[in-house]
Amino acid sequence: MSETKHVFPNERMKRVKMSGGIREILSKAEQMEREGRSIIHMEIGRPDFDSPQCAKDRVVWALNNGQVHYTDMGGTQELREEISKKYCRENNMKVDPVKNVVVTAGGAMEALSATMLTLCNPGDEVIVPVPYFSAYADVLAICGLNIVPVEPREGSLEPSAKNIERAITQKTAAILINTPNNPSGTVFSKKCLEEIAEVAQRRDIWVVSDECYEKFLYDGVHISIASLPGMENRTVTVASASKTWSMTGWRVGWIIAPEQMRPFVNKCHQNLVTCANAFAQAGVAEAFRSADADVKEMVSEYRRRRDMVLNYIKNTDGLSLDIPQGAFYAFPLVDKIKDGTLTGFEFCEKLLEEAGVSAVPGDVFGMPGHIRLAYCREYEYIEEGMKRVKKFVESL
Amino acid sequence: MSETKHVFPNERMKRVKMSGGIREILSKAEQMEREGRSIIHMEIGRPDFDSPQCAKDRVVWALNNGQVHYTDMGGTQELREEISKKYCRENNMKVDPVKNVVVTAGGAMEALSATMLTLCNPGDEVIVPVPYFSAYADVLAICGLNIVPVEPREGSLEPSAKNIERAITQKTAAILINTPNNPSGTVFSKKCLEEIAEVAQRRDIWVVSDECYEKFLYDGVHISIASLPGMENRTVTVASASKTWSMTGWRVGWIIAPEQMRPFVNKCHQNLVTCANAFAQAGVAEAFRSADADVKEMVSEYRRRRDMVLNYIKNTDGLSLDIPQGAFYAFPLVDKIKDGTLTGFEFCEKLLEEAGVSAVPGDVFGMPGHIRLAYCREYEYIEEGMKRVKKFVESL
Repeated sequence: MSETKHVFPNERMKRVKMSGGIREILSKAEQMEREGRSIIHMEIGRPDFDSPQCAKDRVVWALNNGQVHYTDMGGTQELREEISKKYCRENNMKVDPVKNVVVTAGGAMEALSATMLTLCNPGDEVIVPVPYFSAYADVLAICGLNIVPVEPREGSLEPSAKNIERAITQKTAAILINTPNNPSGTVFSKKCLEEIAEVAQRRDIWVVSDECYEKFLYDGVHISIASLPGMENRTVTVASASKTWSMTGWRVGWIIAPEQMRPFVNKCHQNLVTCANAFAQAGVAEAFRSADADVKEMVSEYRRRRDMVLNYIKNTDGLSLDIPQGAFYAFPLVDKIKDGTLTGFEFCEKLLEEAGVSAVPGDVFGMPGHIRLAYCREYEYIEEGMKRVKKFVESL
Repeated sequence: MSETKHVFPNERMKRVKMSGGIREILSKAEQMEREGRSIIHMEIGRPDFDSPQCAKDRVVWALNNGQVHYTDMGGTQELREEISKKYCRENNMKVDPVKNVVVTAGGAMEALSATMLTLCNPGDEVIVPVPYFSAYADVLAICGLNIVPVEPREGSLEPSAKNIERAITQKTAAILINTPNNPSGTVFSKKCLEEIAEVAQRRDIWVVSDECYEKFLYDGVHISIASLPGMENRTVTVASASKTWSMTGWRVGWIIAPEQMRPFVNKCHQNLVTCANAFAQAGVAEAFRSADADVKEMVSEYRRRRDMVLNYIKNTDGLSLDIPQGAFYAFPLVDKIKDGTLTGFEFCEKLLEEAGVSAVPGDVFGMPGHIRLAYCREYEYIEEGMKRVKKFVESL
């Protein structure tokens, strides 16, 4: 039987990390659990809350009312209207349901892949301030683009507009930002966003803004860069229902695109996935209308967890951090990694093996020296994790 | 305010058809309907049946049992097992739920985009026998690949292995086939598939086989090319729940990949969309277990419609066709297009404007001269459409 000449991975997939990422760390931790080890999962950003009852009820209603067929490729008119109203009301943006919104089938990930394919030509560069969500590097590689990571402002986890500008070349197509930030929890200040906006306009570059954690805000305010003067027609905003309402399994996200881009990104999305799930869209529309109280309750619980996690980190010799103002991650600096005793991967492996806590090294987010701790499981569970982390770090 | 240097569409999206496709023809027909015209929709392959009750019930169960979070990126173990069992039992294939199956979030479309991105390098060629589903050309363009259409066997709508072999170059990565075929309804014979398999093996080329209509079979048998000797490790089979159970809005599909490819296509899929909707996956797993009777009933109704449509075509001067053995499309040859009186687009425009029937010219499927008539609405509705088609064609 002949073998094929094709050897995996191909050129494109060679550039995608196949191991060492969040999912692989999770898999290893789950394997240890199956072998009887007690593991505290702080590696994955998967909220533990149930999805809002009103949204689930609406899915049942939709199923019983024939909403089981293709929807408009760009999303149901109902959901696009709810999305538009939200951005007009809360984000100070001008958003039209027909001219600007595309509902995606893979949450913010498909929103990003469709946006990048539509915005950039093969070989283009996308500037991404570190630390950044690990999947960005992979989705850019799959789209045939080159990631250009840039360091934050000295002594801060906020992006530096100066460093961004220095990284611009003839090949630069876009700057990809994420606030509130995964992994650092940093909420970008108005000043920071204004500086990025100024560079983007002066140097004529697009901004793609991933705002999927915007509701998880403990200090500060969330500002959409698209709402800043001059940014409306050069910003693509992506977000999803996944984190906001603890709906990661619903796979509904959206793209807010300038009018001249929308037909093309919609067409790209249509060819990647056709459309989002019909009854899930109905449920998400209902969440927009009726699930504010659920969000409030979740955020208040996340704040309680964050304060506890911060307290443990402050009281651990060998850890330090900028206070995360948003999202549900802490991103402490680890002395023993910083000083070269261990690499980030070695530290996290030891932490898992010896203390039974699963965390992700900062290397995965383009920023060695740190580790990411997700606090999206219940309070007591996370507290047990933090006790183990403290004991482990202080024993090193 | 500065304008951006970026002009839409970019190089990639320039190669994607933005008008004249099935969706645009549908939009125009819907616009005419809103203006009060009586329109019979025969342009889109959107089944009119409700999804199986057992599947909908299972979604409700899943929603009430916490299946609202991320699933395994490659799909729930439950659904991957059902898929594997089906292919082992019905398709004479060896399929393992862990080693071979990836569940996709965008039905067969995402299965195709993830497969093509994983299998081919930018600039590679993919051989596609005409007539082919129109979105193939667009999805290949988005993946940075070149479509190489090849003519069918003389006097037939089946692919010609000879023509396929003649089209092979150093750049050829894969042959993309679709049986039962959209738009022609042709079910590829065992002989035809064996000839393609022989070429694929001798010339060391991959085969991607889209089998999403396999249940819609009125004559002949469905054969998966992956089940032919020597093809297991060079075939990717894609399919979905969309047509089989009238679940187009559920957006669940799958990829059956050789073991050496599966980790890479799963990673590509993960970065494009993360995973498929959790509760929809539960519903589809239930459909595999319990909805055979629903399929049988649908197929029997489709057969009744097909026979009626065939009968009208046979009795219409100016139309002729190969009898479609599967899917839910008829693809008659139209004399007035063939002889150059009208182009396919002109014919379909006149048919819509003058007779109120919305159909798609064969040009959209790489085969001018024909039109595609979808018979997936209710019998009486389609019969009214066919009466109008007959009257219109005979009046030309």
